[in-house]
Amino acid sequence: MNLDAETDLKLERIIDVPRQLVWECWTQPQHIRQFFVPRPHSVTACDIDLRVGGRFNTVFNVDGNEMRNNGVWLDIVDGKKLVFTDAYGEDWKPAENPFMTAILLLEDADNDKTRYTAIARHRTPEARLAHEEMGFFIGWNIVVDQLVEYAKGLRR
Amino acid sequence: MNLDAETDLKLERIIDVPRQLVWECWTQPQHIRQFFVPRPHSVTACDIDLRVGGRFNTVFNVDGNEMRNNGVWLDIVDGKKLVFTDAYGEDWKPAENPFMTAILLLEDADNDKTRYTAIARHRTPEARLAHEEMGFFIGWNIVVDQLVEYAKGLRR
Repeated sequence: MNLDAETDLKLERIIDVPRQLVWECWTQPQHIRQFFVPRPHSVTACDIDLRVGGRFNTVFNVDGNEMRNNGVWLDIVDGKKLVFTDAYGEDWKPAENPFMTAILLLEDADNDKTRYTAIARHRTPEARLAHEEMGFFIGWNIVVDQLVEYAKGLRR
Repeated sequence: MNLDAETDLKLERIIDVPRQLVWECWTQPQHIRQFFVPRPHSVTACDIDLRVGGRFNTVFNVDGNEMRNNGVWLDIVDGKKLVFTDAYGEDWKPAENPFMTAILLLEDADNDKTRYTAIARHRTPEARLAHEEMGFFIGWNIVVDQLVEYAKGLRR
């Protein structure tokens, strides 16, 4: 995948969760609610229609404020790749000011681990910088830590 | 499909071309070049990778000026639906200022004709208005006329 250092942000880690379980956590609302935003913030609602053009809507509680994030799935490769964005609503309605397009890539790693690559693509260098200053690397890494912890509980 | 009168434009016609032939004309570069812009403007190049996220790039000659249009397919339902946009390049790279998202719907009509619905969705009412004032209805109707004429030649 060709990335653009001016507009994209990328996080890559090997995590001790089997690829199929990461996939399930990322595609089922009851799991998303458990890890998808850094605590003490929380996911209060999640609605997923897992098909190209289908909705991926979440509501976050951030310091008591409700934050609605509506978007769609752009690309789905079962168990391996998810692409979603706030640039569209259902029926391909374009959003006026989309923020980003996110790409999650999952690959098998040794010992039943997973190479987890998360990419955020932006329309402009300014949007990338704003996202970095909002704490992209810390925030998305905490989310991965929470995902690993939660997934280990599922395996017990 | 839920449309938005503030931001969308729609053209619907019954055309005397079988649905499968309309589909072929819309998805093969050698056909696209024959009808896709109102004459005397012309398509000088067309590059299609017909899959979700694949490229749909064209070059127009408009009064001697080269006009490049790069985009991707968002959704493909074989023989029935095409969605494409200039909002992305390959690998889901977001464009800074996308203009529109286009949806083509093809349905069987009586006597081997086709109900041809073309929809242009925009991010803002201002973009819809600009597109209408650029001649959306005249232009897209001429394109349909050219498609019908060209397709009849293919059936001889």
